[in-house]
Amino acid sequence: MAFDTQAWLAEARALIGSAHVLSADRGDDLSAYTRDWRGKFQEPALAVLRPADTGEVQALMRLAARSGVAVIPQGGNTGMCAASVPVPGGRPQAILQLGRMDRIFEIDPENNTATVQAGCILQTLRERAAAAGRLFPLSLGAEGSCQIGGNIATNAGGVQVLRYGNMRDLVLGLEVVLPDGERLDLLRGLRKDNTGYDLKQFFIGAEGTLGVITAATVKLFPAPSAGSVAFAGLDSIGQAVRLLGAMRARMGERFAAFELISGDAVDLVRRYFPDTPALLERRWPWHVLMEAADGGGDEALREAMQAALMACLEEGCVEDVVLAGNLGQGRTLWSLRENITHAQQMDGGNIKHDISLPISRIPAFVERMLPQLRQSFPGARPIVYGHLGDGNLHFNVSAPAGVAPAAWQERTGAVNRLVHDAVAAMRGSISAEHGVGQLKRHEMASYKTAAELDVMRRIKRALDPQGLMNPGKVL
Amino acid sequence: MAFDTQAWLAEARALIGSAHVLSADRGDDLSAYTRDWRGKFQEPALAVLRPADTGEVQALMRLAARSGVAVIPQGGNTGMCAASVPVPGGRPQAILQLGRMDRIFEIDPENNTATVQAGCILQTLRERAAAAGRLFPLSLGAEGSCQIGGNIATNAGGVQVLRYGNMRDLVLGLEVVLPDGERLDLLRGLRKDNTGYDLKQFFIGAEGTLGVITAATVKLFPAPSAGSVAFAGLDSIGQAVRLLGAMRARMGERFAAFELISGDAVDLVRRYFPDTPALLERRWPWHVLMEAADGGGDEALREAMQAALMACLEEGCVEDVVLAGNLGQGRTLWSLRENITHAQQMDGGNIKHDISLPISRIPAFVERMLPQLRQSFPGARPIVYGHLGDGNLHFNVSAPAGVAPAAWQERTGAVNRLVHDAVAAMRGSISAEHGVGQLKRHEMASYKTAAELDVMRRIKRALDPQGLMNPGKVL
Repeated sequence: MAFDTQAWLAEARALIGSAHVLSADRGDDLSAYTRDWRGKFQEPALAVLRPADTGEVQALMRLAARSGVAVIPQGGNTGMCAASVPVPGGRPQAILQLGRMDRIFEIDPENNTATVQAGCILQTLRERAAAAGRLFPLSLGAEGSCQIGGNIATNAGGVQVLRYGNMRDLVLGLEVVLPDGERLDLLRGLRKDNTGYDLKQFFIGAEGTLGVITAATVKLFPAPSAGSVAFAGLDSIGQAVRLLGAMRARMGERFAAFELISGDAVDLVRRYFPDTPALLERRWPWHVLMEAADGGGDEALREAMQAALMACLEEGCVEDVVLAGNLGQGRTLWSLRENITHAQQMDGGNIKHDISLPISRIPAFVERMLPQLRQSFPGARPIVYGHLGDGNLHFNVSAPAGVAPAAWQERTGAVNRLVHDAVAAMRGSISAEHGVGQLKRHEMASYKTAAELDVMRRIKRALDPQGLMNPGKVL
Repeated sequence: MAFDTQAWLAEARALIGSAHVLSADRGDDLSAYTRDWRGKFQEPALAVLRPADTGEVQALMRLAARSGVAVIPQGGNTGMCAASVPVPGGRPQAILQLGRMDRIFEIDPENNTATVQAGCILQTLRERAAAAGRLFPLSLGAEGSCQIGGNIATNAGGVQVLRYGNMRDLVLGLEVVLPDGERLDLLRGLRKDNTGYDLKQFFIGAEGTLGVITAATVKLFPAPSAGSVAFAGLDSIGQAVRLLGAMRARMGERFAAFELISGDAVDLVRRYFPDTPALLERRWPWHVLMEAADGGGDEALREAMQAALMACLEEGCVEDVVLAGNLGQGRTLWSLRENITHAQQMDGGNIKHDISLPISRIPAFVERMLPQLRQSFPGARPIVYGHLGDGNLHFNVSAPAGVAPAAWQERTGAVNRLVHDAVAAMRGSISAEHGVGQLKRHEMASYKTAAELDVMRRIKRALDPQGLMNPGKVL
């Protein structure tokens, strides 16, 4: 029997209201939902469904299961791997857009938890937590538009992982709608619960392929009242790894961020953002941006940071360092880090890698890769930076001077192969925080063992036997 | 075809050596393996298998799968819920004892990781980490005999969860042998890895029902160089919750433990351990034992702790407090906490509960439960203590004076029902850190929704279609 689009749309509209079922045939513009934000993927969708609550999600999932329609859960659609937009071919695909489900049900300062719907914008949650004297620590570039449900489905990372962990570490409870429309109520605010399999773990990081996350209870923390930022110059990455160890030993969990930035990355930022001040007296091949946070006053933390840095200077695990005297200076230091992506974009084509390795192996990895890249791709300019404290590097490779972005993008497969083979040989990850989606699906499969892929497929079949959830992603 | 015990034992002995397959029929004493340590469960086993390495585990699992023999993974056999001993009836059960697989493969101080075999004793790992200047933070009463594999399979908790999390939070990588003998190599030391489903999560806390954990890569931390312990008297649990918030705001992640102890619990300890000093000038209905740890010197941390406690006294969130002046005094304070279990044992029968709740609801829970218990079970003496910082209470109920332990144990079902119904009504957990095993299997099922149990069973069937792994536990 042929699929009857009009009948399906009419059923969906009867379930959640005509205004909330967008479709191309009646002239709705779906492009903001069907295209990933990097603009690399765009395929048509049967409809964009915008449910108001969990009950409507259940009704829509039952409809989808009955009619064999694939469902693509979508939050802010800010992901890097096109996990929340349609794939080419296959069965009809409906986008389940959760943005209307944006309520914050509860902020519980004594339990240090927030319970929110999946469509809540990350920044909104951070602001509401701050108003209650609490920190929700997840912080990333897209926080003004990404949604908590998407953050959970992709196990988002960001700049505070060193201290507070990834999104997985911040989730205490979930509400999930299964592919058959059944609601799984795991919405508990408990730090400890050993009653059977921890089912929420299955859905965190699964990129919407096992069910729809509709709400979550997440951890909050006491809002730090003091912050201190420093910027250091170093001779080598090995020195940066030693500095990390020395600073963590002295500052403990106050240590919140440890970002590596290559000399080339600093040069690039200063070229495209000429107002960027020269932070250190001379150019160093490597830099580190560090931040600590604590209760108490800024002055006490700044003194502790200064004492720790002085000791590190004496021990030879840092060459030169500047400590921000106030919040404004701290922001200037951070803007250097944040402008790297923009500068790379302005500079032309670049091939991105989001890799992780055991921290102890990063110096050897980088020292091995840089000459190999320069040899295999003459003129290629590696721009290395990232969350060294988490073992996560954004190991991007800018086009040789004069090579057009499109021509350089054609080398993506070859550059990826060189970098990712080296990562795999050192037991690292080819997608540390960005996930798999449709972008890295085939590449992921080539680096996993047959046993791993087999177990993933068994889990997928157990929870989604019809294969309705976000097909063509991850697996 | 009848099961041929002798042929099976001969096959097993051919695989891993005769000395390492213990069986009752040749006179081996299996009781240390077939009986749980609380002495409540004992059933015969076909054999106790003691493999030397992962390859031997694979060979044994293939034999078990071929012959339909159930396999019970066993570490130190120190669990509270009899998850690592045989169950009555059913197919032949072999205990897979991992104690010979006790190697520490690597301590990597720069990556802050250790890679160990499952049979490594927790205390051994803690000592080896300490020798490298690192802390492995899991700490619990049985650490001299429990094994890392068992700690992972039960997602162990203990006294440092407030700062470092449960065992799940400490595991970066796993090696698992699946029920069909396939090896799943997830042994990575990465803080970030978003390449598909995070398969290790499925096996952590599954109590050996989905596969055999054979090795793990776990997180280490810089070893704190300073510690400070305080003991406070309080009017109410509500005040204790306020104190927790006020101290965390000031001390941040330096705050490592926050243990609640009722006045009755202190009285009980002083009755059976008469050398216990009177720590505060008067008797308080509630107490809290607090510990902070940090880099730097003891004196600086002690001063920070003192300043924070003084502020709390002024704010009225604590009534009286004593701060240990040195390590010896700190140990004395901790021994009070550690002697509660022993004192309860010496005092006679008690019915144990290991519950968790949102911290904000604990005052209401305790204030509601205490009169209800006294009314329903006249003379019953609730002894309340536990990890308040994690929302986890050991809410134990001692027998009324003059009631024999055996007679009181007969009331277990009725007392459990009263306590656990109240926990469930407040969306808490009836097993915060002790797990399910065979002890709480039926009770867990009565508090889970049908949807949750259904998903658990689907996962079980997907990974263990023959039902070989630790039958009669959890599900």
